[in-house]
Parts: sequence; structure tokens; C-alpha cells
Amino acid sequence: MFIEKIDVFCTSPGRTFVTVRITTSDGVVGYGDSTLNGREQAVATYLRDHLVPMLIGHEDGAIESCWQLLYRGVYWRRGAITMAAIAGIDMALWDIKAKRANIPLYQLLGGRSRTGCLAYGHAFGKDIPNLVEHAHGLLEQGFKAVRLQAGIPGHDSNYGVPLPNQVDQGNLPVTEYWDTPSYLRFIPEVFSAARSELGEEVHLLHDSHHRLRPIEAARLAQDLEPYRLFWLEDCVPAENQEVYRLIRSKTVTPLAVGEVFNTVWDAQTLVTEQLIDYLRMSITHGGGITAMRKIFDFASIYQVRSGIHGPEDVSPIGMAAAIHLDTALHNFGIQEYSGYQSLSMDVFTPDFTFESGMLFPGEAPGLGVSYDEELANAYPYERSYLPINRLRDGSVHDW
Amino acid sequence: MFIEKIDVFCTSPGRTFVTVRITTSDGVVGYGDSTLNGREQAVATYLRDHLVPMLIGHEDGAIESCWQLLYRGVYWRRGAITMAAIAGIDMALWDIKAKRANIPLYQLLGGRSRTGCLAYGHAFGKDIPNLVEHAHGLLEQGFKAVRLQAGIPGHDSNYGVPLPNQVDQGNLPVTEYWDTPSYLRFIPEVFSAARSELGEEVHLLHDSHHRLRPIEAARLAQDLEPYRLFWLEDCVPAENQEVYRLIRSKTVTPLAVGEVFNTVWDAQTLVTEQLIDYLRMSITHGGGITAMRKIFDFASIYQVRSGIHGPEDVSPIGMAAAIHLDTALHNFGIQEYSGYQSLSMDVFTPDFTFESGMLFPGEAPGLGVSYDEELANAYPYERSYLPINRLRDGSVHDW
Amino acid sequence: MFIEKIDVFCTSPGRTFVTVRITTSDGVVGYGDSTLNGREQAVATYLRDHLVPMLIGHEDGAIESCWQLLYRGVYWRRGAITMAAIAGIDMALWDIKAKRANIPLYQLLGGRSRTGCLAYGHAFGKDIPNLVEHAHGLLEQGFKAVRLQAGIPGHDSNYGVPLPNQVDQGNLPVTEYWDTPSYLRFIPEVFSAARSELGEEVHLLHDSHHRLRPIEAARLAQDLEPYRLFWLEDCVPAENQEVYRLIRSKTVTPLAVGEVFNTVWDAQTLVTEQLIDYLRMSITHGGGITAMRKIFDFASIYQVRSGIHGPEDVSPIGMAAAIHLDTALHNFGIQEYSGYQSLSMDVFTPDFTFESGMLFPGEAPGLGVSYDEELANAYPYERSYLPINRLRDGSVHDW
Amino acid sequence: MFIEKIDVFCTSPGRTFVTVRITTSDGVVGYGDSTLNGREQAVATYLRDHLVPMLIGHEDGAIESCWQLLYRGVYWRRGAITMAAIAGIDMALWDIKAKRANIPLYQLLGGRSRTGCLAYGHAFGKDIPNLVEHAHGLLEQGFKAVRLQAGIPGHDSNYGVPLPNQVDQGNLPVTEYWDTPSYLRFIPEVFSAARSELGEEVHLLHDSHHRLRPIEAARLAQDLEPYRLFWLEDCVPAENQEVYRLIRSKTVTPLAVGEVFNTVWDAQTLVTEQLIDYLRMSITHGGGITAMRKIFDFASIYQVRSGIHGPEDVSPIGMAAAIHLDTALHNFGIQEYSGYQSLSMDVFTPDFTFESGMLFPGEAPGLGVSYDEELANAYPYERSYLPINRLRDGSVHDW
Repeated sequence: MFIEKIDVFCTSPGRTFVTVRITTSDGVVGYGDSTLNGREQAVATYLRDHLVPMLIGHEDGAIESCWQLLYRGVYWRRGAITMAAIAGIDMALWDIKAKRANIPLYQLLGGRSRTGCLAYGHAFGKDIPNLVEHAHGLLEQGFKAVRLQAGIPGHDSNYGVPLPNQVDQGNLPVTEYWDTPSYLRFIPEVFSAARSELGEEVHLLHDSHHRLRPIEAARLAQDLEPYRLFWLEDCVPAENQEVYRLIRSKTVTPLAVGEVFNTVWDAQTLVTEQLIDYLRMSITHGGGITAMRKIFDFASIYQVRSGIHGPEDVSPIGMAAAIHLDTALHNFGIQEYSGYQSLSMDVFTPDFTFESGMLFPGEAPGLGVSYDEELANAYPYERSYLPINRLRDGSVHDW
Repeated sequence: MFIEKIDVFCTSPGRTFVTVRITTSDGVVGYGDSTLNGREQAVATYLRDHLVPMLIGHEDGAIESCWQLLYRGVYWRRGAITMAAIAGIDMALWDIKAKRANIPLYQLLGGRSRTGCLAYGHAFGKDIPNLVEHAHGLLEQGFKAVRLQAGIPGHDSNYGVPLPNQVDQGNLPVTEYWDTPSYLRFIPEVFSAARSELGEEVHLLHDSHHRLRPIEAARLAQDLEPYRLFWLEDCVPAENQEVYRLIRSKTVTPLAVGEVFNTVWDAQTLVTEQLIDYLRMSITHGGGITAMRKIFDFASIYQVRSGIHGPEDVSPIGMAAAIHLDTALHNFGIQEYSGYQSLSMDVFTPDFTFESGMLFPGEAPGLGVSYDEELANAYPYERSYLPINRLRDGSVHDW
Repeated sequence: MFIEKIDVFCTSPGRTFVTVRITTSDGVVGYGDSTLNGREQAVATYLRDHLVPMLIGHEDGAIESCWQLLYRGVYWRRGAITMAAIAGIDMALWDIKAKRANIPLYQLLGGRSRTGCLAYGHAFGKDIPNLVEHAHGLLEQGFKAVRLQAGIPGHDSNYGVPLPNQVDQGNLPVTEYWDTPSYLRFIPEVFSAARSELGEEVHLLHDSHHRLRPIEAARLAQDLEPYRLFWLEDCVPAENQEVYRLIRSKTVTPLAVGEVFNTVWDAQTLVTEQLIDYLRMSITHGGGITAMRKIFDFASIYQVRSGIHGPEDVSPIGMAAAIHLDTALHNFGIQEYSGYQSLSMDVFTPDFTFESGMLFPGEAPGLGVSYDEELANAYPYERSYLPINRLRDGSVHDW
Repeated sequence: MFIEKIDVFCTSPGRTFVTVRITTSDGVVGYGDSTLNGREQAVATYLRDHLVPMLIGHEDGAIESCWQLLYRGVYWRRGAITMAAIAGIDMALWDIKAKRANIPLYQLLGGRSRTGCLAYGHAFGKDIPNLVEHAHGLLEQGFKAVRLQAGIPGHDSNYGVPLPNQVDQGNLPVTEYWDTPSYLRFIPEVFSAARSELGEEVHLLHDSHHRLRPIEAARLAQDLEPYRLFWLEDCVPAENQEVYRLIRSKTVTPLAVGEVFNTVWDAQTLVTEQLIDYLRMSITHGGGITAMRKIFDFASIYQVRSGIHGPEDVSPIGMAAAIHLDTALHNFGIQEYSGYQSLSMDVFTPDFTFESGMLFPGEAPGLGVSYDEELANAYPYERSYLPINRLRDGSVHDW
């Protein structure tokens, strides 16, 4: 059987998602997620103009070969756009393969390694009491692990804390301003309060979102040691993987990184030198199931566990793929899960479930996600941007 | 003064080029090259839909700040599409800055370090006599350095050797078949013949185009030592930079790599461990002048020299930028130059010149290249692909 | 256009400065700073007797080539005298290039990356109350960052604390006596008091001025962690860069070093192993703008930021060059600024400004500094020395 | 006893030499060499204006303390000018100490470790026959070791080969042009011929004078292996000591480097990683006897031997100091010795001797060298420069 048709949808039902639909010569339909936050049209064009024409007629079951074709045949390898496009095709082909076999995807990936997958939610607040209240809400929903982000005194806005004062700027990026010293002083207070308010049992996580320099990250990780974080995430930009050597030498706070990575090469030094504890690459941005299975297997050699990226910038298709892989992987760690707007769930209606802080894959054949083309089309693509982050002197800072 | 308008052109005057034109609030016009062979529309979309809207109103002289905005503000950094898009903007801004200053670009980059820039041309042939004849032709044109690529006995087609049997496939990628052992046996014969036919003085180069595995590359590099190559290029895929340690340990043949790299991180280990002698990144794919100047300065610390990529998949704008940088850099090595079809030269009419095997920047203010929009529009975009490379057993091989 | 005349001035208007003035064949004049505290005449001789004769007739726009000529052509490379001499020539040539282009220097260096440059001032006192009072005065002047140096109990004099008992010794070096244990005990008290008196927001810095041994520096840096220094500077002599490995392994206090460095080689291990957070080389002693731009770009790969040296031993010309580079660099950290005597400002009348703790480059073409030759000549060179530092047993200690 | 007077002479009796003469309070006179080829006046000024005033009254026997004062008290440490100035003072103080003790200097340094010191001379020629003839002449003079430098076909001039076509340029630097490929092809022929003409017994050396890049040096060192060189010298610029790792990994040809080094820090990596076999620092440029004794002792830990620099750019005083140190050192390797013009010998009249290819220190107290002030003064300082080396494209190359 072979690929007969590939549709690429770029719509904005609440959030913008790039969705790949492959139809085979015998009418099997598979879905994949190629969403890339703020760069959606570039991925859609990459798929429509460059990948789709060359894939019509390709044997749909030859997934590894197809992946290698798209990776090596591009010549200009790597990068988020390339790998998100490949990921969408790859997921759809795995969806088709599992549907043909009439089994849920995790079964094709080696079968169930666990009953469910520990998830963490996003708690935030404009101040500590607000944050703690929000976190309590998540615990009541069943979460056993929460990421905590609080408004920093003196900052107008903060990553992970949606504030009311972020006005619409006509589909142009919002500018945020960042100050490291006040952040470094405040975050230990946040976790001190949170640990005493939320108890010892709950897993607490934090994301520095690339805002620190290595010595600052080292300091923060040390200061947070009394509160036993599950992990400290993205404390510094990581293109130069070697900078993690300094941070790692200073602390026993577990470290997580990787949501911006696209290939194994982005994490090779981090893994082989055991500079991190959790690798956060997503199926959607890391080249699909074919690639991510290998990458996590490689990580297992160094006892590094998975912590797949999973806010709303991954569609429910990408989330379903993650949960299937989480279920099958031996070295699973945790799954990020911030839920979806109901409109998104209406468009995709995934069959995975969340209960008692755990995520469970569905048992429908394949990925277990559909796509309501008509409903989605009612929400055409709207341009949106991630914010721009600057220091007070106006210089561009890492976002 | 600020950016008032940005036009992005994707046309096919002989070859497909992606051209950026920035017009400032006071009417200065600058050009940049964002061409990415076989992925042109993805770059054009990345520019038009994502970068252009956020750049209108940006101060045109604040180039470093603009570069950081586009690199860090993207969140999803790196990759050829992202960096080619940034390159086009960056080149156009440098063009504008030099035009405002009324000096050729190389003057802005520190001034002239040399009278002209050694170039190498492409010699190829279906067999050794044909190749040698072609190479003689290049020497007669003045070239002092030639890259030699020959048809391998038993291969239907070969990288770098345009053969008559490559038929049009309706704008779909051609498939080529590759066999390493015959290549490894044959290439030393090619260079033995070439060296004795062409003399000791001419610089001979060769490109393995990522087809080998490390131990094979090491063997070839050793076997070629008697013929004193200027360099052996792209002998293996280099995403895992560490694989060059093996090759490097085995040979004194100079090594070059980098035309598929996009950021300094792609070359960091190669440079700091001195695993290569020439870094072949292009201005067009490496993020523009702002980035490439820094990268070559970094390489100079480790006595690594430049060897900028420059076949027709870089437009005359990108070539002009390269020649200006080559002229200003201290650690210049060589510049690839295969010339352009006359139609391309009519569209861009650059003022750089080639004489006696050297390239010379023009003295017009800025990059010294224009863009005939009307003529280019007469050749609308046509999809084309780089070939796909497979082994005889059908498995995908590196191209 | 070419260099027609080079004048070298060594005068003492308040402080001794070595100033280079280049006049081109078409009458453009550029200024550079070659001041080297206590070794001014050696630099002036180096320039007048060795560099100037060979530069007459050199193309003034070929700055990179001139730099390489002066660096590589010397044979005896490196060292403060050589590099200060080159710096003066290089700054003057950049001044000329920017004047020809009719733009302020920072525009040539890539344009404005920030609105202004954070500066730190020098607070000192014979004891803690005196120091705190002085620091308050700086905060009232607008400083957001202050370096704190206090008289150590039992010491007669201390680096950074001008005391009344330093008598004139007929233009011979003053001898100071140093005792490490009392210093190590006292400094944490200083910062404990300063932090509680000055508040959490102000950036506090400290300079150990090469007086410690590695294990002592590690101890001090640890002891200062509660007070969250912006940086601890020059804690040990750094010719052997490897000694910083020990210090770095022991503390998360940020480290700064480099005011005595002259080339990238002096910092290569410190940077590539991330042993420091801020590189403090000056334009004046590090070979000028051509060299320092490359060095800071190299540092950026390892997330090391700039913290350019800037007390009165750099002339207002060198300070202007620093502020232009600070404005253009992405990885700017902070700029040292202790101000100038009014006489010095009368001689040089720079157009940079200080306001609200920030430094701003002027908008005049070039560096924006002039030189009143007549006024300066009224203050002929007077020999002066940096102090000599000894331990109580009379042995020579690091100053 | 203390230093009462220091005279600094900068004269040109055939060559320009900077000579230090110290007279003590009790009338003992000592001599030192501070010559720095092409930068003599800067050293003389450094001595006269900055060092001399602070040394009057210093205890003449406290040499170590004086060295530390001049090294650490300078603040701006290192560099050829600084260290040559210190070297002159240091040598003169050792001369005085030995004269007071009424013994030749080597006795103070631990006494005689060998009867004489193997020397190598300079053979050169415009072509191979000419070179071989010259080398035969040296062998007849008794030399057991000769450095061979030949004119490279196609080069107008070459380092180490004084050619008649180097015209006077009015006391400005001569420009030479360099071409690496022709050099690399020719030198193995030179050594093949020389080895067969001169026999197996003679030690053959070669100096690449920093002209190569690492992979080129590796190639040359390999190609020369059949001719069993005593050493290959200065094959690449060595500020980045790490570049020697590549060369070292490729060859068993012994490597020598160091004539441009000034402190132990310039050789630290080279020695501790055993990247070289001979360290070529000179007493005159390396800070004197106090420093160089320690540096060679450090080298001995890694079985690296001495090979002290010694052409005419070191005065007979510096040569005498070298021979005394060579005699006393255990890990002596070889001493460069190209002899002196008779006029120079008349000015300095050293008591060391050359016989049967060996150098022998004299037995007069101290260094055994005097200085005929009157004769020297008859040859006032004339400015001269080392040549400038460029590639054919005009770019500055290493000299």
C-alpha cells in the first residue's frame, strides 16, 4: 500500500495547530502533529511545497526508510521547521501502521511498560498566595506534580504567568522585560512557601526558561536544594551543551532540558556526560516517533529519563503520541500536561485520559485522535508570536 | 531611520533564488540572499509570514540587536530555514549600512586584508580523460585551484558530475545509486592522473559529499596523501562532530566541512579540537554577515581558515557578501566559485569580478548587487529538488 | 587615503595619558589611547621609534590588515606595551573610519544593542561606616552598582582606598604591606554591613587585586555568597589560568578577571572552561577595537560577558571606545567607571554621558573625543608608579 | 651593598644591542643583555624611565627579590619588552654576585654538569648545492649540528637565507612573500639531499619560522621522518599552545619551539602535555637567569630539554649567560650559535669559546664579558626592522 494523499491543515481553533493527514491507497487515514508555535506557516509550506509532492506513492509501511529519506534527502538537515515537518509525517505513518494492525500505538512500540504515566500541571500566580491557591486547585484535580511559576516583584510580566496587563498588539510580539537579580532572590522564597504549604509529597518543578547565565543557574539550583525539586528546567540556553558542566558541578538539584531540541545531536553531550536528568524533547519537534524512541533509548544508557514537553503548543495528536511512547518506554520520567481548551478537544477528540495525576493512552487502534476538518476550518489561521524578552536596557534577552 | 518595507522574492531565473529587499523610511534599499536549495518556499514563508511583520519599524542601523531578536526571539533557534531567513535580513541591513556610509561593505568589516581572494572552480568529467580536459579548461580561464569530481566506473551518476542520463522527473527528486568500495578504489587513480597531468602547482580539491563512513574517510584521506590535496571535503556526515576525531587521527590530508552548518554550535567541537582545517559555512545559510564574521574570528583562534561555500545555490547577493567578507577576514583560505548562468547575472548584475583565478569585490557602496524585479518575475518559481541518494539495496544513503 | 602623520603625546594633565593622533592624507584626524599606567614612556617610545615610521603611507581604511601587520610583524608579540601601542593606532583608525562614514563608532560595530550601559563606581572608606557613607553618595549620584573596598584593620593602606598617609616619595613607588588573614576575616563583615545598609537592589562588587592564593580565594568567595556579589574580581594572579579551576569548583559567587590581560590567549582557558563570568580586558590594553570585539564575541560562545576595565588609567578616549563597544556588543555585562578629574575632561572633552547609573555614547561621528594639545602640553609628563605590595616579612607580594 | 648606578646602552656596532651595566656601591660592575630585535628603544626606555629609578639603592645580592619586584611590581606583567628589561637587570646582578664570589657564573648555578655544550650553526644556500656546500663549511669548522635553510624555488627571499636582492629600504621593514605549497614540496628534497651528502652522523635541524598551519606542519614533520631531524622548529605560531596537539599526534620528528616566549606561561601546556621536545626560550627574552633556570627545571619534569635561542639578536652577554646555564643544567639539549661579527666581539670580548662543535664557558669570575663603551658609542643606534611576511595576495602572514 502506498501514500495517496497528504493534507496539511494550519488552523487556529483556540490555538494554532499544524496537522498532517495521510490517506493511503487503500483508504487508511493517519494523523500527525507538525505544530511549531509562532512559525506554523513555515512548517506548513515546508510540508506542502517540498515534502508532500515527493511522498505521494511512497510505501506507507516503510516508516524508517521514509524518515531517513526526509532527514538525509533534505541535505539541509536539522532545525525545528524541518524536524516538525518530518514529525507530522512520521506520526501519521505510525498511526496508519497501528490502525492496520488494529492495535493502539503503544503496542507497536513494545507494549505497555506501566499502567499510567505521571503528569505534571502548570500552577502559577501573580504572587505566592495566588500561586499556592492555584497549586492547591491542581492537587484537587489529582495532580501529584506541579510546575510552579510566580510573578516576580517588580516584573510587569513573567514567563508562565499569564497576566491581565498583556494587551493585544495587533498580532505582533509582546515585549516583556526581565531582571535576573530579583528573580534569583525571589524564587527560593516561592519554593520555601510552596513546600510548607503543599507538603512534602507533591513533586515540585520549576522552569527558568533560559533566562539565567551558568553561574546564576548554579546559584539558584543550590538555593533550591532544601525544597527537593523534581527538576529545575531550562535554566540556561543550551546550544553550547558544555555550559551545563558548570551548573552540574554545583548542585544536586535534578536538571531538565530539551523542549527546543530537534535531534539527538542537540543533547549528545548533555546525555553522554550525564549533565542532565530528564530530556524534554517532544515528539512533535524532535522528528516524530521514529526519532524520539531512539533518542530516549540512547538516554537510558546514561540513566537519563524522559520528561516530554507538553503544553498547548503541541496538539492533542502530538500529546497522544507522547502518551503512547511514555507508556512503552522503560526510562519514562514524567509527562508535561497543561490540558487543552475545550474547542481544541472538540477538533481533535483524543481518547487519552487523565485521572489521579496520571495520563493513560486510549485503546483505539493507532494514535486514537481524529481531526474535525470542518470545525477547524471555522477557525482560520491567525498569526501569533511568542513574546520577546528584553533586559531593562532594551537589549535582547533569551526567552 | 527604520525599516519601512520588506519584499521577499522567490523566483527561478535559471536557478531558484530567495531574495530579500529592505526599504528604509528614508528610501535606502538593501538586498539579502535567503536561498535554500530545494526548500526555497519554506524560507520565503518564514520571512513573509513570521519575520517581516515584526520588523517593520525596527531601526535599520541596529543590526546586532536585530540579529539577536530574530535568533533569540524565535525560541525555536537554529536550522537552515531559520538561519537562511535571518541571513537575508542581515545582509540587507549591512548593505544599507554600507550604502549610508557610502563605502563598499568590506570597508565596514575592517577594510581590505588582501588584494583578491583565491577561488576554486568545479572540474568534472564522466571519466578521467574527460575530467582532466575540463580541468585544463578551468586553468585556461585562470583558475589556480580546482575541485575534481569524476564519474565512478559502475555508477550511473555521481555528485558533482552532471550526466546526460539524468532525465526530468516532473519536478520530483532524481534518485542516484551509490557504491562506496568502487569509489574508494577509483578516486586515488583520479588524483594520481590529475596530479601528473595538471602539474604540482595547481591546488586540487575533492568533495566526498558525506558518502563515507569514518574509517572509509580515513582510508581515502590516507590514500590521497601523495597527491597533496588542498582539502578533502565533507567526507562524512558531521552532525556528530566527534566522528571527525577518528578521521583526523589517521591522516595529514587537510579537511574541510561546513556547507550544511547553520550556527557556530555545528562546528564548535570541530574547531576547538582542530578536527578540520577549513570551515565552509556560507553567509547565506549561516545567519548572515553578523554571524559569520564571529564564527570565522572564532575559528582563527584555532588556526582554522575560511572556505566559504559558493556554488549556484547561493545567489550573486550571497556570493558578493562572501567576497566582501573574504576580503576583510585575516584567516581567509579559499572561496568556492562555480560562476553563474548569464540569466542570473542579468537579474543581479553584481560588481564583483573574477580574474586570474581570484575574486575581487566591487567598489560600489554596499554589497554592490542590484535586483531586476521585472526580469526575475518573468521566471516564476519552479519546484526543484536535490537528488536522493540510495545504496544498491535501496536503503537511503547520505547525499 | 593613507596615513600621513602620527603624533604621540605623553602628558600628565592630572593623570598621565599616552595619546595617539593620526592624520590622513586628506586631513581626517583620529585619536587613540595607548595609556599604560606607570609604563607610559615605554609605550610612547614603542610607538614613536618603532611603529610610526613603518605606518606612514599605510591605507587608513585597512584596519584589520594594519592590526595583523603590527601584531604578526612584531615577531615579539603580546605583552601590555606592545598591545597598548597597537590599541592606540587601532582606535585612531576606527575613529577615522567612523568619521569618514559620518556616524558614531557604535554604528560601525553593528549598531545599538541597548539604550545605555550599566556602570559601576568605586566606593571606599577607611572603615565600614566611612565606606557605607561613600557608597550612599554614589547611589545618590545615580549608580546602581558599586565596588566596595574598605581599609582592613591593621593595614596601613589598601588597594582602592586612597588614604591620607600615602606620602609623596619623590616619584618613586610607595610600598604597601599586606596581610591576608585579616583581610579574609574582615571582608565578609564589610559586605554583611553593606548589604544591610544599602539594600538588596544595588549591585555590589569587590576586587581582591590578585592578593589571594587559590584556596584563600575559594574561601572568601564562599564566605561572600550570602551577600550575592555581582562579582568578585581578580582574586588571584591569573597567568596560570588553570588555578581558577580550584576556585571555580568551590563557589557560586560570580568571578571576574582580565584587566591585566592583553590578548585572547591570556583568557582562552578561562573562557573555554567557563572559569569566569565576566572578562575585564580593556580596549586600551587589549589591542584596540579590532581585537576586543573578537575576544568578546569568543566569550559569548561560553556565555561569558564583558566587564571592561575603566578607572582613570584609561584615558577618556579609551573610555569612549569602551562605551561604543559596550553599546554594540550583545554580551555586555557592566562597565567600570570611576569618572575623571575635570582637567582630564578639559583636555579630552568626550561626548559620552553618565546618567542614572548608565553610560551613553555620544552621537558625534567617530569616537566623539578631541584632544587639546596645547592644554595637555601645559602638563608635561611626570613619572609615577603603581605601589609595590609586600608581606610583613618584606617579601614581594602581588599588587 | 646596593645598586648605585645603572647605565643602559643602545648602540649598533654591526647589530643593535641593548646593554645594561650595574655599578654597586662598592664599585662592582655587572653586565646584562636586554636586546630585543627591532624594538630596542622601547626596552631601553622601559629600563631608563621606569626600572632604573626604582632600583637605585636596592640590595644587589637580593636577586630573587629584585626579580619578583620587577615582575609583580609592574602590574602589567609579561611581554617581550618587560621581560627583556628584567633579563638585563637580572643578568647583571648574577654577574655581580659571581664576581663577588670570584667564580664563573656556572659555579653559582650548581656547577659544571658537562665538559662543553653542543652547539648548532646556521647553514643556508640559495639552492640545494649551495646549501650543502655551506653546511660542509660548518662541519669543517667543527660543527656537529647544523640548521639547514634553503631558498625555495619561486620565492624571492626566504627566512634564514640572506639573499643579495634584499635592498635597503631606508630603515623600513623589507616585505617578503611566502608560498606554503612550494615550501612543503621542496623541503623534503632538501633534507634528502643533505642527509645523503652530509652523512648520517651530523645533526640536522630545520626552522619553519611560524609559517605553517597545524596540518601543514604535521605533513612536513611526517615527510621529514626519513631524514631523522634533530628537531623541527617553530612550525606554527604557538600562542595557542593547544594547536601543537594535532602536530604532535602525527609525527615522531622531534619538535622545538620557544624563541618568542617570555614566561613559563607561554610554554606551560606545551611542556605539561609533552607537546615539544626542546624549549628554545632565551635568557635575554625570558626574564634572565633567575627565570630561565626555573623554567628549564620545570621542563625537566617532563623530559623536555633546553635548546636556547642564540643568533646575533642576543648579544654576547646573553650568549655567555646561556652558555653558563647550559653548562650547569642537567637537561641541556643544544645551544644555537651563529657566531658574531668581529666588531661585536670587539665591543663585548666574551671569554666563552667554540671548539669542535662545542661551546665552553670561560673561567673568569661572573659572566666573563665586558663592554667597550667608547667603541660601542662610535656606532650609534640605527633603526632596523625584522622583515614583514605576506602571502602573494598581500595578506599579512606570520614571520
